[in-house]
Amino acid sequence: MTYGVIFGANSYEHEISIVSAVVLKKVLKAPKQFIFCDKNKEFFLIDDEKMNAKTFSSGAYKKEKALVLKQGGFFYKTMLGEKKIEIDVAINIVHGKDGEDGKIAALLDFYGVKYIGPRLEASVLSFNKILTKLYAQSVGVKTLDYTVFNLHQEQDVALEFPCILKPARLGSSIGISVVKDEEDFKYAKDVAFEFDEDIVVEKFVSNIKEYNLAGCMIDNKMEFSIIEEPRKNEILDFEQKYLGFSESSKVGEADISEELKQKLKDNFMKIYNPLFKGALIRCDFFVIDDEVYLNEINSNPGSLANYLFEDFTSVINNLAENIELERQIKIDYAFIHSINGQKGKL
Amino acid sequence: MTYGVIFGANSYEHEISIVSAVVLKKVLKAPKQFIFCDKNKEFFLIDDEKMNAKTFSSGAYKKEKALVLKQGGFFYKTMLGEKKIEIDVAINIVHGKDGEDGKIAALLDFYGVKYIGPRLEASVLSFNKILTKLYAQSVGVKTLDYTVFNLHQEQDVALEFPCILKPARLGSSIGISVVKDEEDFKYAKDVAFEFDEDIVVEKFVSNIKEYNLAGCMIDNKMEFSIIEEPRKNEILDFEQKYLGFSESSKVGEADISEELKQKLKDNFMKIYNPLFKGALIRCDFFVIDDEVYLNEINSNPGSLANYLFEDFTSVINNLAENIELERQIKIDYAFIHSINGQKGKL
Repeated sequence: MTYGVIFGANSYEHEISIVSAVVLKKVLKAPKQFIFCDKNKEFFLIDDEKMNAKTFSSGAYKKEKALVLKQGGFFYKTMLGEKKIEIDVAINIVHGKDGEDGKIAALLDFYGVKYIGPRLEASVLSFNKILTKLYAQSVGVKTLDYTVFNLHQEQDVALEFPCILKPARLGSSIGISVVKDEEDFKYAKDVAFEFDEDIVVEKFVSNIKEYNLAGCMIDNKMEFSIIEEPRKNEILDFEQKYLGFSESSKVGEADISEELKQKLKDNFMKIYNPLFKGALIRCDFFVIDDEVYLNEINSNPGSLANYLFEDFTSVINNLAENIELERQIKIDYAFIHSINGQKGKL
Repeated sequence: MTYGVIFGANSYEHEISIVSAVVLKKVLKAPKQFIFCDKNKEFFLIDDEKMNAKTFSSGAYKKEKALVLKQGGFFYKTMLGEKKIEIDVAINIVHGKDGEDGKIAALLDFYGVKYIGPRLEASVLSFNKILTKLYAQSVGVKTLDYTVFNLHQEQDVALEFPCILKPARLGSSIGISVVKDEEDFKYAKDVAFEFDEDIVVEKFVSNIKEYNLAGCMIDNKMEFSIIEEPRKNEILDFEQKYLGFSESSKVGEADISEELKQKLKDNFMKIYNPLFKGALIRCDFFVIDDEVYLNEINSNPGSLANYLFEDFTSVINNLAENIELERQIKIDYAFIHSINGQKGKL
């Protein structure tokens, strides 16, 4: 199984995606091709030995082979024409915009490339925190109460403080603020509106219990990671959250009852099946008074949450074996023939 | 304003999309380039004079210029290299899969091509009838009560007959059946599962009042079509529904009170704004006891519902002037520089 690791793209998490790809180079023990999508959304094939941060930050990647996505895969120019890069399954590890909003999924479906990652519907529902809440509710998973603010709509809502503001469509804690009063709120709202036209506001619960669980479905059976209780410092900022996984270190399992573990898995399963088939996702849950609440779905989690799995490479290989191309429709022009019969030439 | 009309693709409504494009050729009085996406999802530039059904059903389109979608637009090969086809705004008139599920939207956003059509989130929420119901509810628009059946899940639900079965992700009445008893239901379910893994079942209300309204937002102001009461024969089948618009004839306005017209427009507005900005959509509503219910959202309606507008070309031109490219994110590699400072080379 040869993988095509797709990373980068035009996202606030572009750099995080480079970190994820560098980590995958180390932890995914299988042949890989690295496909970089730059900020202008041009694709490049990056040599293994050039898979380091400087290749990207210096712009040196532009000297690598340029790729074009066409039916069947990624192609580069040769003296005589063009050549397809040989991969069996792509891995979409673009975080945030382009990767988790559904665009890369759409491209790969459209161009007939098998991939590990959320499909189009799954991407759209997990990328937007408002839609995630609607979806979770529809499958019987609780989320915290919330209020939505839109940049273009005046809104006079009484808020309970402290509360937490989140741009609706960003991951990695970007643009998130915890505020203590109305004045803080105004400022934080302006910050969040820099990133998104919609903001989700929830009551902030301090010292809330948080648990992360990753998994995927293989042969109609869930493969779960261990459950992690992330360390935190009120709220994790961008750097705290990612400097952690850049070390690709393993973490310990949360010290919780078997009953709570099962509850978390049951909620994960409701979220995952069948919407997220084909993807390895991480769900971040809150637990309040023994009740489980979904906080967010990471549909392309940082470095594919490898640090939560005992044997990450086997999980990915087994998942890859299960990936299918989108079902295609037979088109036979029977309808046009029938119109032309009944109504004259169209 | 030169338009690039994109049509075809791998959809049950591939042929309907060809009909739509042929109609647009006639009714949209502006320079146009016709971009055909064949069933294998290869693009071709079709000469105006070849815009007839036979070009497609005979396979003759394959002799036309092949196009590749890359950053900035559609390109074809020339003796010396390649040339971009000059369009200002694309019009996505692919119906059903590929066009209304969000794939064409994703491609055009990714490759920086302006277009008229629903964006990614809007596509996903309107293409899947289950998600449409969740979305409608969230913006305060009523829909009929429903039950969902999934191909892979056994379900024992008491149904009220007669009821109507619809594959969750198809338009144009394909795979839809009205059934009168349990036996009919089993058969109809098998038919619907040929098209989709999810089926929506609603109680069938005979002689229900149905009204169609199209519109789009231009400069933050809604531009509405007339309201049509579609003729019907219990339920419109595929051919009845489309032979109608292939004539590109005008229809008369429904004979209803101003109050009901306003109610329909208010509901349309709740659905449209802001999710569908950039698209001209048609909403099909039911009215029961003076209450308005959304039946479905056609995010790329047949021939863009031109027959509902007095001056269709002006509406499209004004809408096109309002289209913006997706906002792009500035990437400066500050984060990677900071990691490399703190942690050594990545």
